[in-house]
Formats: sequence, structure tokens, C-alpha cells
Amino acid sequence: MTETQKIVIIGGVAAGPKICAKLLRTKDFNCKIDLYTEEDMISYSACGLPYFIEGLIEDVNRLIVRTPQQFEEKGANIHLNKRCTKILPQEHKIVIADTKTGIIQEVEYDKLAITTGARPIVPPIQNLHLQNIFTVRKIKDGIEIRNKIREENTKKAVIVGGGYIGIELLEAFYKNGLEVVLIERDEHILSIFDPEISDMIKDEIVKMSQGKVNILTSEAVIAFEGDDRVQRVITSKGNIIETDIAVIATGVTPNTEIAAAAGIELGVSNAIRVNNRMQTSIKDIYAAGDCTENYHLVSKNYCWIPLGSTANKEGRCAAINIAGQYDAFPGVLGSAVTRYDGLSISLTGLTETEARKFGFDVVSSVMTKKDKAGYMPGAENITIKLVVDKRLKKILGAQAFGNGDADKRVNTVASAIMADQTLDNFLHTDMTYAPPFSTAVDPLISAALLISNQIYK
Amino acid sequence: MTETQKIVIIGGVAAGPKICAKLLRTKDFNCKIDLYTEEDMISYSACGLPYFIEGLIEDVNRLIVRTPQQFEEKGANIHLNKRCTKILPQEHKIVIADTKTGIIQEVEYDKLAITTGARPIVPPIQNLHLQNIFTVRKIKDGIEIRNKIREENTKKAVIVGGGYIGIELLEAFYKNGLEVVLIERDEHILSIFDPEISDMIKDEIVKMSQGKVNILTSEAVIAFEGDDRVQRVITSKGNIIETDIAVIATGVTPNTEIAAAAGIELGVSNAIRVNNRMQTSIKDIYAAGDCTENYHLVSKNYCWIPLGSTANKEGRCAAINIAGQYDAFPGVLGSAVTRYDGLSISLTGLTETEARKFGFDVVSSVMTKKDKAGYMPGAENITIKLVVDKRLKKILGAQAFGNGDADKRVNTVASAIMADQTLDNFLHTDMTYAPPFSTAVDPLISAALLISNQIYK
Repeated sequence: MTETQKIVIIGGVAAGPKICAKLLRTKDFNCKIDLYTEEDMISYSACGLPYFIEGLIEDVNRLIVRTPQQFEEKGANIHLNKRCTKILPQEHKIVIADTKTGIIQEVEYDKLAITTGARPIVPPIQNLHLQNIFTVRKIKDGIEIRNKIREENTKKAVIVGGGYIGIELLEAFYKNGLEVVLIERDEHILSIFDPEISDMIKDEIVKMSQGKVNILTSEAVIAFEGDDRVQRVITSKGNIIETDIAVIATGVTPNTEIAAAAGIELGVSNAIRVNNRMQTSIKDIYAAGDCTENYHLVSKNYCWIPLGSTANKEGRCAAINIAGQYDAFPGVLGSAVTRYDGLSISLTGLTETEARKFGFDVVSSVMTKKDKAGYMPGAENITIKLVVDKRLKKILGAQAFGNGDADKRVNTVASAIMADQTLDNFLHTDMTYAPPFSTAVDPLISAALLISNQIYK
Repeated sequence: MTETQKIVIIGGVAAGPKICAKLLRTKDFNCKIDLYTEEDMISYSACGLPYFIEGLIEDVNRLIVRTPQQFEEKGANIHLNKRCTKILPQEHKIVIADTKTGIIQEVEYDKLAITTGARPIVPPIQNLHLQNIFTVRKIKDGIEIRNKIREENTKKAVIVGGGYIGIELLEAFYKNGLEVVLIERDEHILSIFDPEISDMIKDEIVKMSQGKVNILTSEAVIAFEGDDRVQRVITSKGNIIETDIAVIATGVTPNTEIAAAAGIELGVSNAIRVNNRMQTSIKDIYAAGDCTENYHLVSKNYCWIPLGSTANKEGRCAAINIAGQYDAFPGVLGSAVTRYDGLSISLTGLTETEARKFGFDVVSSVMTKKDKAGYMPGAENITIKLVVDKRLKKILGAQAFGNGDADKRVNTVASAIMADQTLDNFLHTDMTYAPPFSTAVDPLISAALLISNQIYK
């Protein structure tokens, strides 16, 4: 039996609990696990908050994957309301402050895992102190927003930011009968999509919302106004928008200040640089989840794409390596999905814009087609954009949206990209067909054929 | 300008019309196209017939992809009710008989495409001449069955055969309020799945059907009985089952007699052997669709898996090569999907049974998991079986079923197999995640991890 290893984990949302759970399941690894979080709960689905706000989930506890008790029963020590203030790599120690009592303690580790996640960026808007202005990251944010939109006199809402969270809140607010204005500083909402795709999505959202939703682009919020609580939003174009609630969803930034202070190397967007075993630049310190940088398998560049699915994979990889075994996490494709009401919105790999930036010889196609046989009830349009390198004949990325089954088709492309598939081979992929599920020539194959026709003509 | 080529196509359901349509779109290819079919319509979705029978599609014309008129307007000649009785390869001619007048004619070709499809196999059951006994292949079959099940005194049905068509008819009949007995000669329904998966699907179907559906296995139908019309079905176990209608769906056989008579080489199941340009063993004769053999990309063996999606791909490939350009169709994975009510049933690649038969060193996993975050409304179970070769670490196949989103996940695996993906790489595939669409660790990844744990432990 090996000597007991002291494993310390800081951060408790996704990657941290994953490391903890995986280590607890690892046989022949003798360890004592201590997980510290500044929050009062751990292991919850932050991605589920918009659906809790919407009211699709009644009990917030359903968002909790595992309770501290469940971890403790298996032998881990979970420390709530404890913030890590300092890492001392030379001494293999961290400093912990109790967020309630302020009491400081030092904790020794043999291996340390940093899983401190990310936090919302709040732009410099005037009067942020007013009531009824929120960000969405933690469970308590979700509870407060949900309570607020259910109050009788909450009729109007402003969402600042048109990324995934902004769109998901838009659904939640629209479905709760609010009139909503979403304000995006950039020229396009969902700016990780190509501009023409973003614009099609925007038009579709507005069309679906029967006048209850307004989306402003190229417009920034410069001030909130009101007595005590927010009543008006002032934009860079001088618009004055009345509102009863405002939510800021303008992106996130990694919680890496204590890592940086300890001398750990940071990368893109100040996320922690890790190798493919999730090891940081300092011995015996690992990192995983939203606080870490990612390697992009298509661009072959570093990026920062914080996502719950990646956090889980990285957490597993970190745990295996912490336990002295070997695992490598190769990197990401940036695959993501969201929805607005019935509209699925999804992408993987590089957009055309990104692909050109990285120097690929791009050819692309955009195609709208029914997701199943046109004569079947429930057949709906999906629009697919495929991006291919003309010389390499490699698939670089896919974007899809529609009321039909768009997201799983993006996964079919993700699977191809992951295997470095060529266009020529991909377009012969034997996909399942039956009238309730697809067309005889699947929309993905049609999109690939369109590109093939461009290349070979 | 090249000399006008005389292109003759025999067969009009899927591959034939596809060849015709693709040739009509081909620039710089000067041709006269004549398509002959013994039926009175062309270019229809035979796969849609069960849904027409069910009543999901009211107008049978919606199953028609393109009418003869649409083809004729573009310049092709469509000849209905004309059966090809002989191919004369030496003379580059075929013999055509008018099915109504019996008049015989000879037709010259420069290039011939055989797309004669397949027809139902009818086992030697006694009293097949009785009324209300059907097979399902052509539009008229669909109309007759639909009319029959809508008659007031049609209350009970027997389906002979538990393959895809049998299951689809089961849905159609069950949804129309009939009491149905499905009788399968083999030990398992859907015998292209592994036995334990077939059995789980069977149990699920029976459970969903509230006593209205009975499935008998290891039992053959030996006789129909009744006065004029079928009233009873007698089985090999001596069961006597009362019924008002019987449908035989015991499989199909390729229509290749005239090809064989002309000396064209046949392969597995008497399907026409073609190379990857869809050329038969005789010069200037091509074949595509259900009448042709397939190359299986995983087993590296020839097989016969007649499917509409493959017919479309082969038709396209044949047309390009007929037009003097180059295209290759690499082969199939046997991907297929069907459903029973809300239950999706899907597979790709090899089952464990097949993989062992072909000599792979098989490891497999079966796993049931929610298709989306468990707290989301509409989250449903899916069961996935993955089959992997332990030494090659190659993914060989996947089977999936469930009320959740099973079929598109099978396509994600199909895409990986098509690219010769390894298990080690596949389990890091960056799949999209959001609570309404999947779990943070997608069921496919979970299934792959299960196998990885078996291999590396």
C-alpha cells in the first residue's frame, strides 16, 4: 500500500467535484481528499439556472448533482464557505479564509487541483448599485432572478449581452410573459457564429416572439437609472428603455488571480495554462474546468472556451493523473448548443471567420432543408453551414440552427472533425434514414455535397 | 459537343429517378434519357408507406418525390407500365413489354442502369390466396391496407415478421386501435440487433402498448384460414389466432433475375455485384439501389443491406460515372433507424454477434442513461450498446434505443466509424452540451468510458 496522499481541491462547481468523485472511485490509490469552496454548496449544474429561472424546474435542489453529504459518506472532506486566498507552492500549502468568521488556516497538500471556475464580467455601467440588477452564475442569483420575475409588477426586462446566457434568459423571460429588450454591444448577437448565421438566428428569434422581444445590436448600455431600483436603461445611442429588472450577461473571466500570484503560468484570456495531463507549470499543481485554457484541435492554437462538458472531461483527466496513472486530454472543438424556445442553435469547430483568421483556404456552404421527410408531421427546417479547407479537404466546422433536429447533426460533424475526417469521405457517411428521423439524403450530406460541387467544379 | 448518349434506366422508385435527376443536372453531358418502370408511378418514398397507413399522411401523393411530368419537363422520357424482360448486352439493347397491352419492343442503349429494386419474400404459408392478406412494397399496397384497417369490422391484425417493416406496421395498426399479434419465426424480433438488445426492445414495445400488442417469437405462421377472407392464422406451435387482416413482412429479395439471365455477376443474396463506380461485370451496364450488393466498411465483406439512403448515394455515384466523370462509393455501415410510437430504434456498424463472426476481438458495453439533464422536462432514457475491437481499439458498431434522442447519437458513432476512429480518441469527442439537449457527459461518452475502463483495467 502506498502512503496516503493529501489531495486538496479548490473550487466546487463542476471540475472540482468531478476530480473528487473520480478519485473516490479509483482503486489502489490511498488518499485523503479535502475540497474547499467559497460557496455554500457544491456540485451543481450552473447551466441549468436559466431553466430554473424559466420555471421548467421547480425545486432548485434538482440542479445539485451530488450533495456535500454524499461526498463525505464516500470519504471526502467538503469545506463550504472557505475561500482560498493564497497558494504556497514551495511549502506545498494553501491559505484558506473562512468567509463567515474570517479565520485563516493553512492546509498542506501533496497534490493540488485548482478548479476555481469563472465569474461574470460586469462592464463599467453607471449605477450598478441599483436594486434588481443581476448577473447569473450562482444558485442564489437564479433564485433571486426567478423570484423577481414572478412578482406582479415585473413586466419589463432588459438583458445586457447576446451570448448563450443572454439568449437562454431571453427564453426564460419571454416564456414568463415579460416584454424583453436584449442589448448587444457587438454588431451581432451570438458573435461566436458567422455574422450571416447570427443575423438569421436573430431574425428567427424576433419572428418567433410576436412583438414581445426586441434585440438591439451595435448598442451598449452606458447607465442604469432609477430610485433605489433600476427603472431605466440608457444606451450609447441615446435610447432610454424602461425596465423592471436588468440582467448582465456580458461574458465571464477566469478566477485565476491566486494561481497567477503563486507564479503559475497563465495563457489566453488569463486562463491557467495546462499540459494534456492537466498539469500546470508548477509541480504537483493541476487545474481543470472553466479556469483553464484549452487547446483547439482544429486551429491548433490555444483558446479559452469555458464549458461544462469540457470541465467534466478535464476533471476526469486530472483525477487519473493525480492518482499516478496516465490520461491525456487532447483538446476541444468548441462544440456548444443553446436554444431559444423551440429553436436549437449549435456549432462545432471553426466558423468561416475564424478559419480565415487562422489561414485556412476556406470554402463553405449554407443550406436550409427539412430535418425529416417533408411529408411527416413535425418536419421542420434546419439551416446548416459547413466550413471546409479546400486544399486539405478537411472539415473545419459546422454551425446549425432551426426548429428541427439541428444540434445532434452538429455532433455528427464534431465526431468527424475529431477523427480528422476528409470531406470526400464524410459525404459518403452512412447515416440512418427513416421518414420520422431524416431525409433520404440527410441535410448534412446535402451540405457536404454542396461544398464538394464547389471544389470539384 | 460530344455525341448524344442513349441512357436507359430500368426501375423507377429511388435509385433510378436519382440517376435520372442527377444526369439532367449534369452540364456538358449530352444525353437522351429513357426510364422504364413496370409500375404506374415513379420516384416515391416506399419508406413512408407505414406512416401513410397509420394516417399521419393523408394524401398518398405526398409520398411522391417527383412526378413523371416533372422529369419530362426537364427532358427525360418516363415510360410507365413497361417491364424490362431481357437485357441483350452484346447488342446494347433491352426488351420491354407493355404490362397492359403485352406489346414487345426493343430499346437501344449506350449506357444501361439497372435499378430494379427488391420485392417482398412470401414464405410458403397455406391459403395465401385468401382476401385481406397483404405485403407492403408499392403505393397500391399501402392504399389497400389503409382502407382495410379503417373499415369498421377490422379490429384484429396479424403481422408476419418482426423486422423494420413489421415494427412500423405494428405502430400503424396499434395507433389505429387494432389488437395486433406480431409473429416472428426467429428467436428474436429485429434480429439485426444483438439478442439482448432485441429482447429489451421487445419488452419495451409490449410495455408501451397496454395489452393491445402481443409479440410471439420462435413461432412461424404455417397457414391462413377463412371463408374467402382471412379469419384465422395457424402457427407452428399450434396456436390459432383470429384476425381480420394479415400482413406479411418477412423480408425482401432483389429483383435481379433479368440481370442474372444476361450474365451479369451476382453476389451476396443474389444482389448485383458492382465495383465502387457502380459498374456491373458487363461493360456499359451499371446498377444501383436495392438490387445491388454492398461492401461493408467495417467487416470488409460483401453484404446486402437494401436501404433508401444507400440507394440515393449509389444513384448519384452511378450518374456521375455514366456521365463520364469519376465518383466512387466506398460502401456502407448498415446504419438504420426505425421507431415504435415514441421509441427510436437505431444501429450502425457491426453488432457484437456479427463482430465475433468476422473475427474481431470484441469488447462491448450496454448502458442506460437520460438523453438530457435529468432535471429537464422531457428527459428520457436511452440505452446504448457500443462494440469495440480490443486490440485495434477501433469502434465497430453501436446500437441504441429509447424514448429519448437515440438515433442521432448513432449517427455520431457512424461518423466516427466512417473515419476509422479509435476508442481512445472518440471518448474525448467534444460534443455539444446544454441541459435541454444532453448530459454534461453525453451518454455516448459514458458508453465509451465504460469500454475504456474494461480495456485498461
